[in-house]
Order: sequence, then C-alpha cells, then structure tokens
Amino acid sequence: MSAPIRVLVWNENFHETMQQHVKELYPEGIHGAVAAGIRENLGDAVVVETAVLTDPEHGLTEERLAQTDVLLWWGHAKHDDVSDEVVARVHRHVLAGMGLIVLHSGHFSKPFISLMGTTCSLQWRSVGERELVWTVAPNHPITRGVPSPLPLAAHEMYGEFFDVPTPDELIFISSFEGGEAFRSGMTFRRGRGRIFYFSPGDQEYPIYHDASIRRVIANAVGWAAGDARDPRAVPEVRHATVKAWDV
Amino acid sequence: MSAPIRVLVWNENFHETMQQHVKELYPEGIHGAVAAGIRENLGDAVVVETAVLTDPEHGLTEERLAQTDVLLWWGHAKHDDVSDEVVARVHRHVLAGMGLIVLHSGHFSKPFISLMGTTCSLQWRSVGERELVWTVAPNHPITRGVPSPLPLAAHEMYGEFFDVPTPDELIFISSFEGGEAFRSGMTFRRGRGRIFYFSPGDQEYPIYHDASIRRVIANAVGWAAGDARDPRAVPEVRHATVKAWDV
Amino acid sequence: MSAPIRVLVWNENFHETMQQHVKELYPEGIHGAVAAGIRENLGDAVVVETAVLTDPEHGLTEERLAQTDVLLWWGHAKHDDVSDEVVARVHRHVLAGMGLIVLHSGHFSKPFISLMGTTCSLQWRSVGERELVWTVAPNHPITRGVPSPLPLAAHEMYGEFFDVPTPDELIFISSFEGGEAFRSGMTFRRGRGRIFYFSPGDQEYPIYHDASIRRVIANAVGWAAGDARDPRAVPEVRHATVKAWDV
Amino acid sequence: MSAPIRVLVWNENFHETMQQHVKELYPEGIHGAVAAGIRENLGDAVVVETAVLTDPEHGLTEERLAQTDVLLWWGHAKHDDVSDEVVARVHRHVLAGMGLIVLHSGHFSKPFISLMGTTCSLQWRSVGERELVWTVAPNHPITRGVPSPLPLAAHEMYGEFFDVPTPDELIFISSFEGGEAFRSGMTFRRGRGRIFYFSPGDQEYPIYHDASIRRVIANAVGWAAGDARDPRAVPEVRHATVKAWDV
Repeated sequence: MSAPIRVLVWNENFHETMQQHVKELYPEGIHGAVAAGIRENLGDAVVVETAVLTDPEHGLTEERLAQTDVLLWWGHAKHDDVSDEVVARVHRHVLAGMGLIVLHSGHFSKPFISLMGTTCSLQWRSVGERELVWTVAPNHPITRGVPSPLPLAAHEMYGEFFDVPTPDELIFISSFEGGEAFRSGMTFRRGRGRIFYFSPGDQEYPIYHDASIRRVIANAVGWAAGDARDPRAVPEVRHATVKAWDV
Repeated sequence: MSAPIRVLVWNENFHETMQQHVKELYPEGIHGAVAAGIRENLGDAVVVETAVLTDPEHGLTEERLAQTDVLLWWGHAKHDDVSDEVVARVHRHVLAGMGLIVLHSGHFSKPFISLMGTTCSLQWRSVGERELVWTVAPNHPITRGVPSPLPLAAHEMYGEFFDVPTPDELIFISSFEGGEAFRSGMTFRRGRGRIFYFSPGDQEYPIYHDASIRRVIANAVGWAAGDARDPRAVPEVRHATVKAWDV
Repeated sequence: MSAPIRVLVWNENFHETMQQHVKELYPEGIHGAVAAGIRENLGDAVVVETAVLTDPEHGLTEERLAQTDVLLWWGHAKHDDVSDEVVARVHRHVLAGMGLIVLHSGHFSKPFISLMGTTCSLQWRSVGERELVWTVAPNHPITRGVPSPLPLAAHEMYGEFFDVPTPDELIFISSFEGGEAFRSGMTFRRGRGRIFYFSPGDQEYPIYHDASIRRVIANAVGWAAGDARDPRAVPEVRHATVKAWDV
Repeated sequence: MSAPIRVLVWNENFHETMQQHVKELYPEGIHGAVAAGIRENLGDAVVVETAVLTDPEHGLTEERLAQTDVLLWWGHAKHDDVSDEVVARVHRHVLAGMGLIVLHSGHFSKPFISLMGTTCSLQWRSVGERELVWTVAPNHPITRGVPSPLPLAAHEMYGEFFDVPTPDELIFISSFEGGEAFRSGMTFRRGRGRIFYFSPGDQEYPIYHDASIRRVIANAVGWAAGDARDPRAVPEVRHATVKAWDV
C-alpha cells in the first residue's frame, strides 16, 4: 500500500486558452484545478501529473500510460481532434487495468464512447441552474465524506435519457432546478479496468473548486486505482489444451 | 397466451373510509381506481379483482393467491394490522412465481420489507409538490407508451436515500419541485417471482386517475405476469444423489 | 401483437462450404438450421430470412436491417471480412432498437466487440467434451421450457475469464467435462436494443439440431424483439431549451 | 487506515464437538481454522476473535457486535437454535454498516435468509467431488492473488438453481466433478453493509486449511470492512420538512 497512486489528469485545454471568462475561472486550466483537488485530498498517497491535447501525442504516449494508474479525462469542443491511435491506446490500457475517470462533457469523448459501445447522448441546457447531487450508494468508497445532497449553486443541466449501458454501480443521481433528473455518478468495469463517470464540471462554472466535488474525485481516484498497480495485462484468448481437471 | 392475466388489487382501504377528502378523490377506493386503470388499458387480457384489509384473512387466502397471477399492494396507515401469517403466504407465493406490484407507501409494507431484507426507509414531505418521472430504461416493457417526463402536478415527495437492495432494473427516476430525486420505478426478481416498486400514488392526490400512471401500472401487470401462469413452485433444496453427467 | 417478428439469421457460411464434415452436419448451412429451429418453435409468429457473408453488402443493407426486428449472428473464420461500414450499420440499428442474438464464436465478431467495448476473449478447447447448460434465471422468458441442465453430448469448451461487461442478466452457466465453467447465456441492453449472447453452437457439432437449443434461441427471439417493432430511433443528444417544469 | 479491522468468526461448533472425524480435521474448530487463515494473511491489520452457538447470547451481544467490523458466519445443523432476537440484532448491524461473510452451509442460516428475502435453497451432494472455483471478476479485490481455477481436491457439491437475489457482483463460479455448476462467490449490499457469500467449506473436508481459500476469505474481510468503522447507522425514515433547494 506504500507506493503512491500515479494519476494523470488529461484536458483538451481549449476553453481556458480561448475564452477569457473560462481562463478566469480556471487560471491553471481545468486540469490544474482537478489536479489540485486530488493533491489536496490525497497528499502523499498520490503523484499527480497533467497532460493536454496539444502535447506531443496528446501527452498520452505508451510510456506515459504504462506509468499511469488512474487517468482522468476532460474534453468538450475538441473530441474529434484526439487521434484514433491514442484513443485505441487509452482503451487498451483501461482493459489492461488502468483506472479511468471521465468528467462531464467527456461523455462524448472517443475513449468513453468506445468503451461503452453506446451513443452516450443525453439532454442538456446551460443556463446556470442549481443542481443537487444525491447519494444512492451510501456505503460506496466514492461517497465517503460526501454530503447528500451535494449542492451546486449553478451548473449546466444534463438530463435523461443518458444512453449508456446499465452501470455496474449507480452512485449519484442529480436533480436540476429546471426539473430534470440525471444519473450523475456511475461505475463500469471493463476488462481489468475500472471506470467512473461523474457529470459535474462544466467549463462555465467553478465546479472543480468545490470542496465536495474535489472529495468525490479524490475518492474515485482511490477506487479506480484498484489493482491498477498490478502488472498491466489485456485479457487474452487462450487455447487451453489441457483440461482443467488435469492441471 | 390466451388465458387472461388474473390480477388482484389489494388495498388497506383506510384513508378512503375515514377521511372525507380522500373518499372524494377515490370514491371507489384506491383499489377501485387502480383496478379501473388496469381494465382500461388491458381489457380482455385481464380479469381484475380487489381485496381489502377488513376482508376475512384480508382477502388473501391460500385459494385466492393460488389463482392470482399478479398482486398489487397499497398500504400506509395499517401495515401493522396485516397478519404475519398472510404476509408469509404472500411472500411464499411471490417466490413461487406470483407477480407483485408494490405501490407508493407500500414500501413500508410487511411483504415488501421481508422480500427486500432492508429497512426500505426513505425521505418524505407532503406539501403537494410537482414531480417529474423520467424514464431511464426506454426499451423496457414497463415504459412502453409512457411519456418522459411523466408530469404529476402535485404529489408527496419521496427522496433518497431509499434503503432497498440494488434493483435488477432501474426504470424511472423522479425529481421533485423541492429539489429531491428518487429512484421511483425499480424491478426486483425474487425466487420465481417478479416485483415492481412504483412510488407515485399518495392518497392525498388523484394520481391513480392519471392516464400515464395507469399505463405504467398496466404495463407492469403484463411484465410481472411473466411465467406466473406456470404451475407455482417455491424453489426447493434438492439432494442430487445422481451426478449430472450420469443423468 | 399480431404482426410477426421479422427475423434475419446471418452466417458467414464458410465452414459449411469448405469443409465436408461441416456440410454434412449442416447441409442447409448453420443459418439454415438456426432458421429452421426458430420456425419450428414460433411458427406464424415469425418470418425468418437468412443472409450470408458473400451476399451483396453481406445481405445487410440499410433497407434489410430497417425491416429486421431481430438479427442473429454466426461468424468464426471470417470476422475480418465483414466490412466496417456494415458493422457500423448493424451497431446503429441495435442502438435504435433492433434485437441482436450473438451465437458462439460470434463473441469475436466486430459488431459484438464494438457493442461490448471489451476484448470478448475467453478460453477454448475443441475436443468434443460434454457440456451442461444450467439455468440461473428460472423466471426469465429465455429459459421457458428449457431443461436445467440442458445436456450437450459433445461440444467445444468455452471457459472463463470471458472478457465482457457485467451482463444485465445472467441466464445460463455451463460446466464442461474438462472442468471449466462459463457464463454461457447473458443479456445486455444497449441503446434501445436488446442483445443476447449464447455460447453453444460450434460448427463441428450438431448443436443447432438440438431441440432444447432451438427452444432457447426461439425464446431469445421473442425476448429480443421487445419493442423492436416500434419506430427505430437511435438515442440522440437534445438541447432542452425549455425547462422541464415549464413544459 | 491505521486501526485494525475487528473481525468476529462465528461458528455453531457442533460437528467438531460431536463427530470425531470433523474434530480431527478442525481441532481448533472451523472458527479456529478460519480465524487462523485471516490472521495469517492480514497480520496486524486485523484483530480476530471467535464466538460459538453455546456462548451466552451465542457470543453476539449488542456490545460485541458494536465492536465488530466484519462478522463471519458458519452454521449447518443448528440454524434453528439461533435465537430470533440475535438474528434481528445481526441483521440490524449489517444494515447499519457491519460487514458479513456467510460461508458454505450458512446459506440456510437465519441471518442470510432474512437479508436475502429468498429461500436460499440449492442442490447438494456430498461424495467428495473435485471442485474448481473460477474467477469471473478479475479486478475485484476479493480475487486478488487467487488462482483461477482454485482447485479443491474433494468437496461437497452445491449446484444451481441457487435461490438468491441477483448479486451486486458475481465473483466466482464453480464446476464440480459430477457436472454441476454454481455461483460460488457473490456480493450483496444491504443498507450500509456489505455481504459476501462464499460456498467452499464443508465440515467433512479440510477446505479452510487451503491457502487460496484463506486468501479469498482474508480478501473478503478487507472488502467487507468498507466503511464499517464509521459510526454505525441503520438507514432511517426522515421527514424532510424543508425543501432541499432551501437548505
């Protein structure tokens, strides 16, 4: 239990560089705020790095992923600019055991869609509505120390139907000022990897500065790490020539 | 497929007989309104009867249950007046294949608690709030022809945490005017029986006169019938003296 | 409920045309045997057609899929010869509501892998071992009238770990003469579509002539049809400009 | 994370005291062997105690349970001798957050049946058959370091249909020499508590001396502890007089 969890926060880093009001909300970038929240909660138990779209190979080389226990993903306007080769690499590492936390508009990212196999479509409206995030799995490690409801004064609305597979675990559901409801926190196991989708975190609102949101994300890092530090191994087909009774 | 589904709507029938305003909402009783909604939607495909707490053995004799494919349950103020013997009988018939639809405050009924194994507790507030029921399983037969959201102008609030086991299928989630969210439609398989819990339907509001609510309940009757018309059989322990390879 | 279910059985049809002993087992092709089994069980309730890899567009044109309620898929040696365009089309139709039944070595087909998001790898050995298929969901419509165990005198072994997502419903588990165990029947909901994976059915063994296997597949056709006859609609992102309370 | 997990291994302790051959297999009792296996794997991370049926209040007083993070349960011949009051107490502590690991014939224990709500019946045959335990959740903490298959040279057969609710997580499936298959490791969340059922461990065979079986049980202790060390709290009904938006 002594080696720190190696965390990599990935962000397309577009809005922050192009839109002044987003830059003011996130002067260190969304990735910077997310990384700060993880460090704040987990301290020496983690080593947190960041990568952005414009890095060579988007900062997601084979070597980098091989040394990443948990990858966080934030994207929105530039999903299509992520190369298919890198997407396949991320997908493979998740199946081999790397944890993946997909944030907010990452629901439409290529890695998430390819791992889910569905459209991942939903309803949305961005007019700064109040959102309440309710815990429905009170004994799950991701909810530890998180208030229920977790209030967000103003946020983008994400509503059902959210076209994802039945989650392995439903952790949070949200209600919005406008009346919509949403499954806002869900886990999915794929191959040897653990995936957590968490919807709060639009670029227009200071969500990632919220202490409880940071707590959820830090908890999720701990959960998603799982056995990520074991030797990475994609499940493989095997010709079992010897009968199991004879082994 | 030709034999009609035999449906029995059970109601404690207390509020309607004791409180004038409830009697006015439900002149035929809550059971009467629920039964009417099922007949209205399913016609000749069902035979619907009703039973109430004050009937001998609460109207739930062994013979009656043996001829019931789907039992609906509404109770609130008189849960404790249901005899343990009848509860055990209902429980046994569900495990043997009878469908069970538990409505609203039936979450605290003895049969539901004994089938769930949990407290079935929740949050509540009855001030006539707007509720929106959102479909999260659009290809489930229970949601067929049901609008999403299904609006209820005024209803009692039921909120999370709702202490039930993870459902087999999450069908609906609701948001309330006051900000709460709730898993308002869920299925559970127990033994050979199918159970659907559906939260709308407080005695203070005319919920069971709503056409969409009636549609949900009728759909659920069709779903819960499942194989209920097969010979009823509680799963039994079996000493398999002969090895399966040798059968 | 009167319109028959439109079923399309797809087969790569390679082994039957190239290997004499397979041709003898399946003189009408695997697709022919599967189709016969469905007709035998469901009669006028279905219209069953077949298509093979060498048909134009593999027999899976947009028009054909639009008129298909349930597609069955058998492939093994020629997965890579299925065009990506057709795979995307099948994938889209499943998300829009078409039922899909994936048989045996179809676990490695492109449509199944893209819908699951995992490797779908497993263990295998083909030495003609006895397999017993055990029902673990006795009240599921797919198991109706199916013996437990369902014995197969000789079959290829498929063993765990089978790298698929947690199924929505686990229906069957198998044991093999050599000691392996396998989750041999599982359902998955994706988008508006229903998917059933069923492992029995290797080309080297007369599995699809077995009456109980035919019963499972016919039951699965009925289950997968679901709402497939509703207007087909891929879940879509929607900008909900009006708040739900205001609708 | 520094406080050790407080583990209590409960055993009816009947066979060991009445049957010489069982006493020889388990000179310290089944509880002694299980406790030794936990200590062997977890060392200072646990404090392990034991209790037996003949202890006052079966060794399961309110005070004792309040200081127990994870309770393990082995029973077989004396299920009916466990008092209903103690069963209700155990049930309540599980819902309030205590972990529970139910072993082998404990499937018919009163606490397990009351938590599941089903008959928990199954097939069985005790003729010393080889069992292979296969991992189907390779990234679950309970399977860490456990071989797949985990071979047991001779054991009692437990077969399907096992009448329990759909588990939250299916961890292991077993095949038996005689051809049966069984869901041999499953998790269930109830209230705030975590439950693991694990079928290996009949009194007639030295299962609890097996290093891999001990590893599974020790892993399960770590998993079931979860938030058990948080203040224990049964989920309670709450009259939420203030709307959530107004808090």
